[in-house]
Amino acid sequence: MRILAVNVNTTDAMTEMIGKQARSAAAPGTEIIALTPHFGAPSIEGNFESYLAAVAVMDRVVSYRGEYDAVILAGFGEHGREGLQELLDVPVVDITEAAAHTACLIGRTFSVVTTLDRAVPMIEDRLKLAGLASRCASVRASGLGVLDLDEAPSRTIDAVVAQAKAAVEFDRAEVIVLGCGGMAGIEHAIREATTVPVVDGVAAAVKLAETLVALRLSTSKVRSYAAPRPKSITRWPMTPPPT
Amino acid sequence: MRILAVNVNTTDAMTEMIGKQARSAAAPGTEIIALTPHFGAPSIEGNFESYLAAVAVMDRVVSYRGEYDAVILAGFGEHGREGLQELLDVPVVDITEAAAHTACLIGRTFSVVTTLDRAVPMIEDRLKLAGLASRCASVRASGLGVLDLDEAPSRTIDAVVAQAKAAVEFDRAEVIVLGCGGMAGIEHAIREATTVPVVDGVAAAVKLAETLVALRLSTSKVRSYAAPRPKSITRWPMTPPPT
Amino acid sequence: MRILAVNVNTTDAMTEMIGKQARSAAAPGTEIIALTPHFGAPSIEGNFESYLAAVAVMDRVVSYRGEYDAVILAGFGEHGREGLQELLDVPVVDITEAAAHTACLIGRTFSVVTTLDRAVPMIEDRLKLAGLASRCASVRASGLGVLDLDEAPSRTIDAVVAQAKAAVEFDRAEVIVLGCGGMAGIEHAIREATTVPVVDGVAAAVKLAETLVALRLSTSKVRSYAAPRPKSITRWPMTPPPT
Amino acid sequence: MRILAVNVNTTDAMTEMIGKQARSAAAPGTEIIALTPHFGAPSIEGNFESYLAAVAVMDRVVSYRGEYDAVILAGFGEHGREGLQELLDVPVVDITEAAAHTACLIGRTFSVVTTLDRAVPMIEDRLKLAGLASRCASVRASGLGVLDLDEAPSRTIDAVVAQAKAAVEFDRAEVIVLGCGGMAGIEHAIREATTVPVVDGVAAAVKLAETLVALRLSTSKVRSYAAPRPKSITRWPMTPPPT
Amino acid sequence: MRILAVNVNTTDAMTEMIGKQARSAAAPGTEIIALTPHFGAPSIEGNFESYLAAVAVMDRVVSYRGEYDAVILAGFGEHGREGLQELLDVPVVDITEAAAHTACLIGRTFSVVTTLDRAVPMIEDRLKLAGLASRCASVRASGLGVLDLDEAPSRTIDAVVAQAKAAVEFDRAEVIVLGCGGMAGIEHAIREATTVPVVDGVAAAVKLAETLVALRLSTSKVRSYAAPRPKSITRWPMTPPPT
Amino acid sequence: MRILAVNVNTTDAMTEMIGKQARSAAAPGTEIIALTPHFGAPSIEGNFESYLAAVAVMDRVVSYRGEYDAVILAGFGEHGREGLQELLDVPVVDITEAAAHTACLIGRTFSVVTTLDRAVPMIEDRLKLAGLASRCASVRASGLGVLDLDEAPSRTIDAVVAQAKAAVEFDRAEVIVLGCGGMAGIEHAIREATTVPVVDGVAAAVKLAETLVALRLSTSKVRSYAAPRPKSITRWPMTPPPT
Repeated sequence: MRILAVNVNTTDAMTEMIGKQARSAAAPGTEIIALTPHFGAPSIEGNFESYLAAVAVMDRVVSYRGEYDAVILAGFGEHGREGLQELLDVPVVDITEAAAHTACLIGRTFSVVTTLDRAVPMIEDRLKLAGLASRCASVRASGLGVLDLDEAPSRTIDAVVAQAKAAVEFDRAEVIVLGCGGMAGIEHAIREATTVPVVDGVAAAVKLAETLVALRLSTSKVRSYAAPRPKSITRWPMTPPPT
Repeated sequence: MRILAVNVNTTDAMTEMIGKQARSAAAPGTEIIALTPHFGAPSIEGNFESYLAAVAVMDRVVSYRGEYDAVILAGFGEHGREGLQELLDVPVVDITEAAAHTACLIGRTFSVVTTLDRAVPMIEDRLKLAGLASRCASVRASGLGVLDLDEAPSRTIDAVVAQAKAAVEFDRAEVIVLGCGGMAGIEHAIREATTVPVVDGVAAAVKLAETLVALRLSTSKVRSYAAPRPKSITRWPMTPPPT
Repeated sequence: MRILAVNVNTTDAMTEMIGKQARSAAAPGTEIIALTPHFGAPSIEGNFESYLAAVAVMDRVVSYRGEYDAVILAGFGEHGREGLQELLDVPVVDITEAAAHTACLIGRTFSVVTTLDRAVPMIEDRLKLAGLASRCASVRASGLGVLDLDEAPSRTIDAVVAQAKAAVEFDRAEVIVLGCGGMAGIEHAIREATTVPVVDGVAAAVKLAETLVALRLSTSKVRSYAAPRPKSITRWPMTPPPT
Repeated sequence: MRILAVNVNTTDAMTEMIGKQARSAAAPGTEIIALTPHFGAPSIEGNFESYLAAVAVMDRVVSYRGEYDAVILAGFGEHGREGLQELLDVPVVDITEAAAHTACLIGRTFSVVTTLDRAVPMIEDRLKLAGLASRCASVRASGLGVLDLDEAPSRTIDAVVAQAKAAVEFDRAEVIVLGCGGMAGIEHAIREATTVPVVDGVAAAVKLAETLVALRLSTSKVRSYAAPRPKSITRWPMTPPPT
Repeated sequence: MRILAVNVNTTDAMTEMIGKQARSAAAPGTEIIALTPHFGAPSIEGNFESYLAAVAVMDRVVSYRGEYDAVILAGFGEHGREGLQELLDVPVVDITEAAAHTACLIGRTFSVVTTLDRAVPMIEDRLKLAGLASRCASVRASGLGVLDLDEAPSRTIDAVVAQAKAAVEFDRAEVIVLGCGGMAGIEHAIREATTVPVVDGVAAAVKLAETLVALRLSTSKVRSYAAPRPKSITRWPMTPPPT
Repeated sequence: MRILAVNVNTTDAMTEMIGKQARSAAAPGTEIIALTPHFGAPSIEGNFESYLAAVAVMDRVVSYRGEYDAVILAGFGEHGREGLQELLDVPVVDITEAAAHTACLIGRTFSVVTTLDRAVPMIEDRLKLAGLASRCASVRASGLGVLDLDEAPSRTIDAVVAQAKAAVEFDRAEVIVLGCGGMAGIEHAIREATTVPVVDGVAAAVKLAETLVALRLSTSKVRSYAAPRPKSITRWPMTPPPT
């Protein structure tokens, strides 16, 4: 089985981290191809950047020449999953939803700890559309930007632990969801500090993608995610596939 | 006052129709500039096309050189309003929300009559995020594609009337909202056939944009729609402004 | 265009203030007629007084002899809008809803800052019925009675600013709505102190009433707000129109 | 124990019917005083009439000279309960809510069968504010006006049975609530025809009022229903108590 | 009239307390039979124990040989009411729901003060299923275990008062519901300390059971609570009735 | 990895079918142990039977002597998952929730097709508590009892297909969930007839259990599902483990 794990920003180091995390979760026999979009912002911290990333991710996948069995959208709280689902016949798993669904299986409520305060509404909106908001105790911001995360792991851990502890104590969260693709790898530290289970979206998405492939399930094409009607679209794909 | 009314698809005839409808609603002294995106699909009938349109609209506005006081996003049920709000200091009014807010002032419930069945979930999602879903009795599809609308006005009217009447009778709608920018101009025919008020989003958006400008109100910049952080973004804007 | 702006209490000074605020928002060519009910309480701070005001407002409008194009119900969180809509063919705009709809156009969430704690549930109920509660971050009380407001503007501003700042910081409000007709005129001070947009309901209602008139839209008469059936009603109108 | 059962319309025959129904439900030792408002409409079938009734009921109760232990507001879907709760120290029980609470104890869902289509939204709103809407499967109209009810009992029963059966079959109601004070007395016929339990609001309200008195419980005065602040109110009470 | 009040745990002292409280609320002529299950936990403080109690209560009622007119399920936040409703033709009243319905009649919001933190989610779930969650301001834990309650009444009162006061002040509760069958008898102390009405579920359930019996209403058998289909069930009842 | 798949009824043939279905979904290396409770009903079609099954399942698992890595609760819409989560340290996956979470990954909405009409409310309640109701388009009954299912596969398929097609057409479902453990094996037939993806809960639960084990995630023990406090419980476990 081959899974594409598509980063939403253009930072190669983050794509590598996502690939590494995905591989550590993958079953034997699952190959992970981590992709970086051909354009967009080096980190996604707002709606403008997220909409641009949605298109860049679709462009990246569409211009990919190999075969694959599933796609993971590796941006937390980002736009674009619905578009990919229309374009593809294979399953598309968004890490936000993958993490939330997984958290629901192991606790009555979960809290998301994310990066900047401005990402909170975006995540709340994605959870609302996914019908998962009622299980979400809170979305909390650590105050760190996306690219600050890997520069100072210990500072990241401290900031996330502080919010995670507050979520458990004040918001009555029973599970913590790491609210950024770039937080992969710190699950164990957060778990140790809070004693509650910690879910990373990239790992969860890999397993759920494997699950769908194993069950021979893929996106329903009956209405919301039917394939686009044939049209003459200007400048699409934006990045022509290599010849 | 100058308002940009941005079409979401690349069909110039529809841009003209939007401009005409906007002008007919505008107060004396309000100038309407109707814009067509530089790329994208000739009609938006799904999430992939809508995400692409969101970026194309942002690109079109950002590469526009003139001054303006407000922007109207003239695609019903489309993505992108949040991104524009981040990029601009002037008010941004989406026609979906403009129509829904206006309908709420004149009836207890409203129904949207749109084009294809596949547009229904997109519109429902936008209304849900806008917190307006509880006033929406139903979103119904006429079965006509976006570009079918202006080709056969009488067929359009018949198809919309049929769904509008069903909405009033079975879904208990008290107001009908026209669920496509391309339906502008048929309000009166629908109103006559159903006897309930009919709201066109483009006209409503013009008046609400004028309202915001008159009240010196614009998008709050405190959190959700704060300006993007300065970043080096690849290929942005996609269409460099003319020199 | 002529708009009736009807105060809900019997205090003439407040009617004047409402008229002044309405006029400052009105377009050239819009005439504002500010009316005081013929009976009721000097300030409305509870359900009993509000129900009485609902009837007094309907009585005042029904006994008004002139012509008019729209009516503004200038009591924040008050009862009565539905009754007026049944009695009249012209649009009726409630300042609570006008402010909330306007706030939704410029921020993801809004908070209302009102007078006494006991007004909070009434406002929450009106927003709930209007289907706007999900965008409302909080309704906060300044602790000042309705008639305390104009006696000490600076004290009013201080009390409202304190709650507005708390709403932005703790409740994550992005827009502040002034939750009393008598707060008209302090928008700018609150805006300066909080840096978020501030919406006054009277001004918003004037613009939305103008919008409806311009769009030739008025209350749907199909069900909820159909004209009352002809009946012999005892003591109605309560104040016979002058002969 | 003495309970005031206040009709909301001015039709004495309906007051008598309400009194009779209340007495048939009352415990030995409970005295029922049925009151007719001094003004208002002969039947309440809309918001204007309902607001007027709210004030007329408050006026009637306030001008009543005797002692009493509880008040029943005997109008289904009507305004006014909150105002009475502010004015009085004894419990106030609204028949809409009494019926709904009672229905919740004996079935998973209930449907209301009421008079005219235009009453449906009013009842839905009262249930929504009461937080009981999620248990309500539907509110259906029989098409009969309030005053048609007692003129032709068999026609009333047929019309109500038809809607009640539809509610059980199509809306999955498990209990039927009679949605008009004037439907008292036909419970048994509806029950026989549908085989599901049928709740009359007047009877339910009497028992719940007795329950509150027996438990020495009355309206909380801490916030929403605190007594009105002392004020000089013009024309109140509207009907001076007899000297 | 004879009412069975069934304790959910196996502690006889608590059964006695429940019986005493029920009798103090019962009308003259109502006989209370307090029953203890034949198996289960001495106190119910979690889902495992609650599910076991649900079966033990059904077993206790089914193996009871006498006649009775209604059953009260005297465990706050416990499972099992739906099963009893299927098995019996007489009304079944759960104290959680009885208290919540009663509280709704006398205040806009109520808070529950219960025992341990781990009971909070269970109570929230029961209120959610009962459709009463929107009126519930909060469920707060006093930190005392069920069996700690009667050992130290004054400590119980202090702990409950502290949470009740916090509920009124911070959660805007207007009524306090005692969230444990074992708290019966401290209503007056809590009421005095908080000045808001206090509802005990056992007392409320007795009155509501009497109400249903008086109104000749019982569980609808049309769908959710239809009698079980005849089946050969292994080991049921678990406790054979005495011969 | 070893997973216990626990049937909720006492019918061995159904346990076998569950085991077979689970094995067909399991990854190489995953061993499935299918267990039948020691007591209860031969099929679960109501709340009484479901509560009894909840206890019987807990009893069966507790009295099982072997080691295992996860438990699957193989009754659709049944009680008991919370109790098992308290008792065990390994993950517990309920097939209702497993199916619903899986369906959410491949369609915007899903419908459940179950057995008898009386099972519908139970399933709705479980989905409501799981916070998944907003994605559920409908729960429909095929009219077949649990034990009718395997007696006449073709009749089962016809009945399920009829409801599944109606769900897609009228309720706008995009995915069908098989609402009974005994429907395992007919996914392909339903899928072929409806063209939408079909999810079987047992298969989904196996993959999600494997997912949790692979991610080293298990139930949070911080509040809702903390281990029961040590107590002396009468008759527990009901079936002593074999010596």
